[in-house]
Amino acid sequence: MKKTTIIGTGRVATHLYRALTLQGVEVTQVNPRTLDNLPVDSDIYLLAVSDNAIPQVAGRLKGVAGIVAHTSGTTPITVLQDCGTSQGVFYPLQTFSKERALDYSRIPFFIEGSDSATEATLIGLASQISQTVVKADSNRRKQLHIAAVFACNFTNHLYTLASQYMEANSLDFNLLLPLIEETVAKLHSLPPDEAQTGPAIRRDTNTINAHLDALTSHPHLKRIYQTLSDSIITTSQPQ
Amino acid sequence: MKKTTIIGTGRVATHLYRALTLQGVEVTQVNPRTLDNLPVDSDIYLLAVSDNAIPQVAGRLKGVAGIVAHTSGTTPITVLQDCGTSQGVFYPLQTFSKERALDYSRIPFFIEGSDSATEATLIGLASQISQTVVKADSNRRKQLHIAAVFACNFTNHLYTLASQYMEANSLDFNLLLPLIEETVAKLHSLPPDEAQTGPAIRRDTNTINAHLDALTSHPHLKRIYQTLSDSIITTSQPQ
Repeated sequence: MKKTTIIGTGRVATHLYRALTLQGVEVTQVNPRTLDNLPVDSDIYLLAVSDNAIPQVAGRLKGVAGIVAHTSGTTPITVLQDCGTSQGVFYPLQTFSKERALDYSRIPFFIEGSDSATEATLIGLASQISQTVVKADSNRRKQLHIAAVFACNFTNHLYTLASQYMEANSLDFNLLLPLIEETVAKLHSLPPDEAQTGPAIRRDTNTINAHLDALTSHPHLKRIYQTLSDSIITTSQPQ
Repeated sequence: MKKTTIIGTGRVATHLYRALTLQGVEVTQVNPRTLDNLPVDSDIYLLAVSDNAIPQVAGRLKGVAGIVAHTSGTTPITVLQDCGTSQGVFYPLQTFSKERALDYSRIPFFIEGSDSATEATLIGLASQISQTVVKADSNRRKQLHIAAVFACNFTNHLYTLASQYMEANSLDFNLLLPLIEETVAKLHSLPPDEAQTGPAIRRDTNTINAHLDALTSHPHLKRIYQTLSDSIITTSQPQ
């Protein structure tokens, strides 16, 4: 079994440490600011730091003997080119919060290696954690990241807008949770374009206009409502 | 126990029939086009038809002796003013698909009555199904519906855009499901504004610009990406 060092103390680092430890992998976690007690004999060094900190920490890992891989969806492998004996990317597609338990086996990992042996080693490590391990170069990771921004970051922002609007009208955001959960649960049985409901897919202009009127005192929400209703209408057949 | 007639054969009607039958309520379901075998002695007539069909079906329910209530979030109670002995609204806030089983007890019901006795009767009926029954007039229902459009219809549209982009790049949309589910699961422990992640909340303009560049061949997605990133930036403090 490969000895692994995780460099980082943030959310991704913490979860990777937990996930690998649960599988009995020998893991050491190191503070990226000090690199105190950095093991010199690890097979794999996982750099789980913020994107803009990668070059700086990478600069201090030139001497290590082992694979150096970062965990970023957006950073090319080339930023590590002088690190270790070979380089890789070990990218988990998930949104991590420190305090939440996760089923790591369901998190897809996307792997790149500077050579096929490195790739195989990193795929082996990811397979200890997850059932879904896929090779992906920089371009592929960028595509995944863009899709994830739509499916996760932007949807969460819509929850924020909905919660602010509910709060402004003294309504409890939790009233929306069963609806939100069912919208997501449906994705397992129905493609999202077929599951679409609401005024825009029905071309129900009476309701759309009534909602836009009601949002006059919330100009920001009104603009987003108009943009996304237009987007539904221009990208779908009417129901 | 109140005898109830559901007028409608669509998704809402089917689920309400199932939910009430499961609770042992005596329910009859009637086709709104023919009104064949319409019971004359029901205590409650629930009109579960599309919004634009309500006035027409309501016009044929003037003679019944009982409460006539519609199930629409957007239609005012006044559309029923000449129906039955009193009128109401019985609005379940959920997205219904015919083929899916639902935990009805978690669906919030919003109730309005033309008088307090009618309201009490409809609240009693909704309470047979659900743990969450709330009084709400037209204005309140409209606010709830607007919030639901953001939290359900628009998020589902973003899943559609993400899935089309994944497909265009020969990637499996299911790779995003663990991420989508965790984004929603977090809502139970963290308000959405605090759970926000991604390039826009970090003011990571390098990544935002790289994504916009990569979306040059998808101008529609590019415009939505720009609009929602701007929305995150203008409505939040930088992380």
